[in-house]
Amino acid sequence: MAKDFTSRKENYSQWYNEIVSKADLAEHSAVRGCMVIKPYGYAIWEKMQAQLDKMFKETGHVNAYFPLFVPKSLFEAEEKNAEGFAKECAVVTHYRLKTDPNDKTKLIVDPEAKLEEELIVRPTSEAVIWNTYKGWIQSYRDLPILVNQWANVVRWEMRTRLFLRTAEFLWQEGHTAHATKEEALIESKTMLDVYSEFAEKFMAMPVVKGIKTESERFAGAEETFCIEALMQDGKALQAGTSHFLGQNFAKAFDVKFANKEGKLDYVWATSWGVSTRLIGGLIMTHSDDNGLVLPPNLAPIQVAIVPIYKGVDQLAAISETALTIKNNLEAKGISVKFDNRDTHKPGWKFAEYEFKGIPIRIAIGPRDLENGTVEVARRDTLEKEVLQIQDIENKIENLLKNIQDNLYQKSIDFRSENTHHVDAYEEFKEVLESKGGFIYAHWDGTVETEEKIKQETKATIRCIPLDEKQVEGKCMYTGNPSKGKVIFAKAY
Amino acid sequence: MAKDFTSRKENYSQWYNEIVSKADLAEHSAVRGCMVIKPYGYAIWEKMQAQLDKMFKETGHVNAYFPLFVPKSLFEAEEKNAEGFAKECAVVTHYRLKTDPNDKTKLIVDPEAKLEEELIVRPTSEAVIWNTYKGWIQSYRDLPILVNQWANVVRWEMRTRLFLRTAEFLWQEGHTAHATKEEALIESKTMLDVYSEFAEKFMAMPVVKGIKTESERFAGAEETFCIEALMQDGKALQAGTSHFLGQNFAKAFDVKFANKEGKLDYVWATSWGVSTRLIGGLIMTHSDDNGLVLPPNLAPIQVAIVPIYKGVDQLAAISETALTIKNNLEAKGISVKFDNRDTHKPGWKFAEYEFKGIPIRIAIGPRDLENGTVEVARRDTLEKEVLQIQDIENKIENLLKNIQDNLYQKSIDFRSENTHHVDAYEEFKEVLESKGGFIYAHWDGTVETEEKIKQETKATIRCIPLDEKQVEGKCMYTGNPSKGKVIFAKAY
Repeated sequence: MAKDFTSRKENYSQWYNEIVSKADLAEHSAVRGCMVIKPYGYAIWEKMQAQLDKMFKETGHVNAYFPLFVPKSLFEAEEKNAEGFAKECAVVTHYRLKTDPNDKTKLIVDPEAKLEEELIVRPTSEAVIWNTYKGWIQSYRDLPILVNQWANVVRWEMRTRLFLRTAEFLWQEGHTAHATKEEALIESKTMLDVYSEFAEKFMAMPVVKGIKTESERFAGAEETFCIEALMQDGKALQAGTSHFLGQNFAKAFDVKFANKEGKLDYVWATSWGVSTRLIGGLIMTHSDDNGLVLPPNLAPIQVAIVPIYKGVDQLAAISETALTIKNNLEAKGISVKFDNRDTHKPGWKFAEYEFKGIPIRIAIGPRDLENGTVEVARRDTLEKEVLQIQDIENKIENLLKNIQDNLYQKSIDFRSENTHHVDAYEEFKEVLESKGGFIYAHWDGTVETEEKIKQETKATIRCIPLDEKQVEGKCMYTGNPSKGKVIFAKAY
Repeated sequence: MAKDFTSRKENYSQWYNEIVSKADLAEHSAVRGCMVIKPYGYAIWEKMQAQLDKMFKETGHVNAYFPLFVPKSLFEAEEKNAEGFAKECAVVTHYRLKTDPNDKTKLIVDPEAKLEEELIVRPTSEAVIWNTYKGWIQSYRDLPILVNQWANVVRWEMRTRLFLRTAEFLWQEGHTAHATKEEALIESKTMLDVYSEFAEKFMAMPVVKGIKTESERFAGAEETFCIEALMQDGKALQAGTSHFLGQNFAKAFDVKFANKEGKLDYVWATSWGVSTRLIGGLIMTHSDDNGLVLPPNLAPIQVAIVPIYKGVDQLAAISETALTIKNNLEAKGISVKFDNRDTHKPGWKFAEYEFKGIPIRIAIGPRDLENGTVEVARRDTLEKEVLQIQDIENKIENLLKNIQDNLYQKSIDFRSENTHHVDAYEEFKEVLESKGGFIYAHWDGTVETEEKIKQETKATIRCIPLDEKQVEGKCMYTGNPSKGKVIFAKAY
């Protein structure tokens, strides 16, 4: 399986595409920019969804569902938001097809079925949701509203890459409504923490929490918080965002509430989302030149058991042992696949599970049965060891934890090695081109400087980091005063 | 809460709309025919999804995700399917908006961003999926493919009703590919059994399994199997369908496989789906003139505990007992809400939980604490009893089972009472108008007769029942030979 597989050094972009394709994660569809998420890729998304959904509910949120379409008049109500998404909208203009009078096997759009008002396929749901919240909110007693939606959205991207940037993608979008600015700010930071915890504990992907600059802010937000991860090629990936929307949407949709004193005020809002893009981040954080590497906490199959046998008698004996192990592991909540297919040889299966990133592979042969052992291979280090079968379930459980921790530590180390501090612009350009990574540098806080650096180097400000002490200095580009270093990187 | 609530007798349709609205299940959105599924309604859908998804996986299926859009050329490939859905398609024709030159606060569709080929918002995904399967299937080793998708679909319905018929709805659609006709037929019947088991064991909604007549068949199918339920107003609800698609889609998309002998043949297909329509069926099967009634197996909250107290000291003492009960019930997997809000009085809470169909309400007052008792009210019969607190968890667990069984039995009884057998057409019309319900009658098997009966009475053939012995007879309308009785009803 791993032959004809491009290495990261040769061509990182091609390596990524081949992993997605050869590990059966996703593929391009007949629709420009839209992907088919294949069962194995979707199983990873299901694991992500289940964990995130649990964390959302633990923080008091409930799920709901809002329409796919946004009437144009609602879409344009919040001006900045509309402006930000207008250039990449799929627009429904008709509601019927009819037989082509020139060719009865073909259909054409029925010109008589033109919509009075065009419908935008949601690129995000603030407009349709805030128009709904208007009917839900009268007084402070109706607040807060803590709602999340799992949905598909469409943004007509011109350059697409599977998972990382597609015209249609799957995501969750939280939309909350609050009585005070403080409460809304706390909510947006709480959800940023949920995202960061999910990224680090489940994806084993370290992230920097930060604030976006004005030019990278979500269209319609007062403040955008984000988590930024560093990929193996030294480029940054925005992995999740949480927006403090102020009263912008409440004003656009006239959503007011009566406070305890009976005074009317506009409602405060947040929205926050992560998407199937996370799968792209997961791939680029851990995988290697042998294929996909999955952290145990998100691997659809955590352990694969491969019997090595000649003839049905040997298989029967091995199966008995294998199934006992499988059952005991499953009782611990570990997902196991026992691959007793006779259509494929053990070597083929080894290669398959290695390429697909199964964290642990157990091989059992006749000699193992005699010796009371199994061979255990871990995907992260590719190390193998022969283990006594006694207490194997606890050993495997510990090994899974160990792999999860190791992947996280490796990524932390990688990020440390690829995080640089620079003071001069020349040094910045040199580090950016020769090493890449996260580059901390002073910036004068203006959109103009940010734009010039972007034009000249393709690096953008990923964020103003939140959890680091800000020390004043001088902008590397203009020499003007800077409040603290920000993180630059080239980004996906 | 229940005041100003229409009774079923007064106006069944209005009663339904009021339940949906006042129990906070769903509401109309700003988009014609599209609904907002509110958190409480969505929580029911999540319970349905979780159980169905488990059953799909237990029968060997995996989930995947396919694009929202279908290019027109793919859409029209399977002719019957295309014809069946062409009249109710939302069509995307443009991919960009721009500022209105006449009014800079408005947006208009950018005429320069017209798509070369129109995109249909999927009304169902056979076309896009079979176009994908073409790339997945070469030989019998690639079969079967057992894939399900959870998704939103759009059918531009002119007359919509919340849950029952909406322009956008949520559903699951299974799409399987097989090497033989027999295997595909078995699959479509297996999934019909899964649906029927789900309806009866979880929704407590009895269903008849049957086969659709040609005129009610899914566009593009060779055979459509269905489950049909009877609502309280004597109308039938098609609750789920499972289609044997023959080789129609394989032929339309040229999907062939090499069998064991190396011979090429077209692949056999099935598809099957249930949707948020099930929530409409759930409401109309069990609810009463006091509001929603939910079967315990699908109730988002199974038990509500209401404290009855004066002052903080009483509340503290009651809370201790209530929280112990809550924890013990939750340890049994029972979902409990302890409603200690001081903003609402107990009477208000009682009315609220009754209207929202919570299966069991427990009230605890200071006298209960003294006596070691609690008051337990069941929603299905509205009976209350005072129970000793000792062993209360097992009593509640049993009561939930009892309520589930009782709701099912009540629905079975209702259906028996409203199932009629007729031989003459006059009798048929009389029974249909005076009683409604499922009417078993002989039919000559022709589309013409079926159509005439529909025109004259609005009754349609719901299905040819599968699990009943077919006895020959004479068509009630034409007197021509009939192979067996079919079920007529007016339907949603």
